[in-house]
Amino acid sequence: MTPETNAWDGAGKRLYLQEVGTRDGFQMESVFIPTEDKIALIDQLSDAGLAKIEATAFVSPQAIPALRDAEIVLREIRRQPGVVYTCLVPNKRGAERAIEARADELNLVISTSETHNIANLRMTREQSFAALSEVITMARQAKVPVNVSLSCAFGCPMEGDVPADVVLGWAARFLEQGATGITLCDTTGMAYPSQVRALVADFRQRFPQAGLTLHFHNTRGMGLANVLASIAAGADRFDASLGGLGGCPYAPGASGNVCTEEIVHALQLMGYDTGCDLPLLLLAAARLPGLVGHDVPSQLLKAGQRLDLHAPPADFASWRDRALARDQPQTAVS
Amino acid sequence: MTPETNAWDGAGKRLYLQEVGTRDGFQMESVFIPTEDKIALIDQLSDAGLAKIEATAFVSPQAIPALRDAEIVLREIRRQPGVVYTCLVPNKRGAERAIEARADELNLVISTSETHNIANLRMTREQSFAALSEVITMARQAKVPVNVSLSCAFGCPMEGDVPADVVLGWAARFLEQGATGITLCDTTGMAYPSQVRALVADFRQRFPQAGLTLHFHNTRGMGLANVLASIAAGADRFDASLGGLGGCPYAPGASGNVCTEEIVHALQLMGYDTGCDLPLLLLAAARLPGLVGHDVPSQLLKAGQRLDLHAPPADFASWRDRALARDQPQTAVS
Repeated sequence: MTPETNAWDGAGKRLYLQEVGTRDGFQMESVFIPTEDKIALIDQLSDAGLAKIEATAFVSPQAIPALRDAEIVLREIRRQPGVVYTCLVPNKRGAERAIEARADELNLVISTSETHNIANLRMTREQSFAALSEVITMARQAKVPVNVSLSCAFGCPMEGDVPADVVLGWAARFLEQGATGITLCDTTGMAYPSQVRALVADFRQRFPQAGLTLHFHNTRGMGLANVLASIAAGADRFDASLGGLGGCPYAPGASGNVCTEEIVHALQLMGYDTGCDLPLLLLAAARLPGLVGHDVPSQLLKAGQRLDLHAPPADFASWRDRALARDQPQTAVS
Repeated sequence: MTPETNAWDGAGKRLYLQEVGTRDGFQMESVFIPTEDKIALIDQLSDAGLAKIEATAFVSPQAIPALRDAEIVLREIRRQPGVVYTCLVPNKRGAERAIEARADELNLVISTSETHNIANLRMTREQSFAALSEVITMARQAKVPVNVSLSCAFGCPMEGDVPADVVLGWAARFLEQGATGITLCDTTGMAYPSQVRALVADFRQRFPQAGLTLHFHNTRGMGLANVLASIAAGADRFDASLGGLGGCPYAPGASGNVCTEEIVHALQLMGYDTGCDLPLLLLAAARLPGLVGHDVPSQLLKAGQRLDLHAPPADFASWRDRALARDQPQTAVS
């Protein structure tokens, strides 16, 4: 067991937040977000202190028209020094495009569940592994780092639990191929804190040198608790989505990714250093309903920060005066 | 500092869940829930393993018409042995009615914030204390236990932070008067985990014999994390609301109380013994939208339990067959 961190007290510990709403979120939307709005939002997020932004995906424009402007987005955004602009790529063709467009990192996806991989990618896991290995070779030649996102690492909505050995086995194979980072993805919100803590501890013990990101969905209300359980096991890097954008096709109506501004709000209150500017994140999040054409899951956007105070009710002064008057000595004539 | 519990691993530890939706939730609704539906729901919850159910409030029927049937509800429900049926009472008149109706416990409310107490109850805190002290005396004579709920224990939406000394000071005065339990209420969802852990630890060190309940709202997405932080500091008793019913007038659109079925789902997965029958809770929660006439905040009700599996997409078999065929040796004629 990896030594336990007291996750309840941040004590200034640095955490790294990575925005996925601009890819994972926008990809789910039925409307096309205008390219200039995507660019403006990413530029705003670049100023907000995020460690990484998944700016877009280099996928077939026929398959995912929402992200058909990948090249333009990556070319036109203002690259903030210190921020990693990563892009999802599904195959060699996407990798060529992303490298050509100067992505800072390629993010590859495979599912740890055979059923989910076939349903999502139309390939067996071994076929995905073979194809992605070629992408990793290509990226290494171009000196572009590669992160591999392991879907369903905390359970598959069709198969059920995925054994930890299977998850860590796929991590090992990709790290051996030259991947520099692994993301354990809770694709449909099946993760729970004790499971998270155990898997993160196992991962860190087995791969102490590998970059590790945790990607949670708030589908069953456990998002923040899973983040804290990861921290307890030594993790410090988390995907999150502005406004909580990003759905889950297997749980209609339920929340998507953990919400960037909610996670930052909670972690900062607990004394963590997230590097993020929360008011800027809230300003950016406030633009989302207008961009996507619907309400977003973020509760913080509705409720405000905990110390955003409210005025007392209009009649407060008279209620108070009447209450105080009851404590005065009664006059003889009353 | 009270010794720290590892909250991440339940290890069979017994927790006690207390339902408040039938009072705190129903009171907020604009429709009148028919008395027979209230009774049927409470009877269903009595079978679901909850430790306590706040069945109703003995308040002025003019002020809160939603609960004007308090006497009938308390008389007609089936009293499950072992379940405590508690009732909110605001004053001596309410206490008389509740005692006459054989409430198992009286729950009294005062705010730790002067502004909130005046806004909510039209009295200063000292005036509330004097009035509630008389209720406690009356209840002790009738041998009915009294719990005192301290509102805004983790912050007031109008004043801001309420110092821990003030909160614990009010707890001390009520315990000296003979209250048997104290609930620390996060009335508008301002609590955060490190604060919760510290206040719960202080409370338990100062009042080791007092019954302690934590009452959280999920207004800013920290509900479950706050429950776990409480457990880390030794608490074992929590209010929650079926379906997440119960709003917060200062945060329109934001979630209400932490959701009973979500909390039970998460805590059971972590290995805690909640005493609750989750499928029964979900059945009861599924009736709520019909009763209150709108969707309820519960995400678990929409998404289902984590291992409620889904069938693969309709075309799955052909996708799999095509994927597998790619691995077959090519025939000479192909």
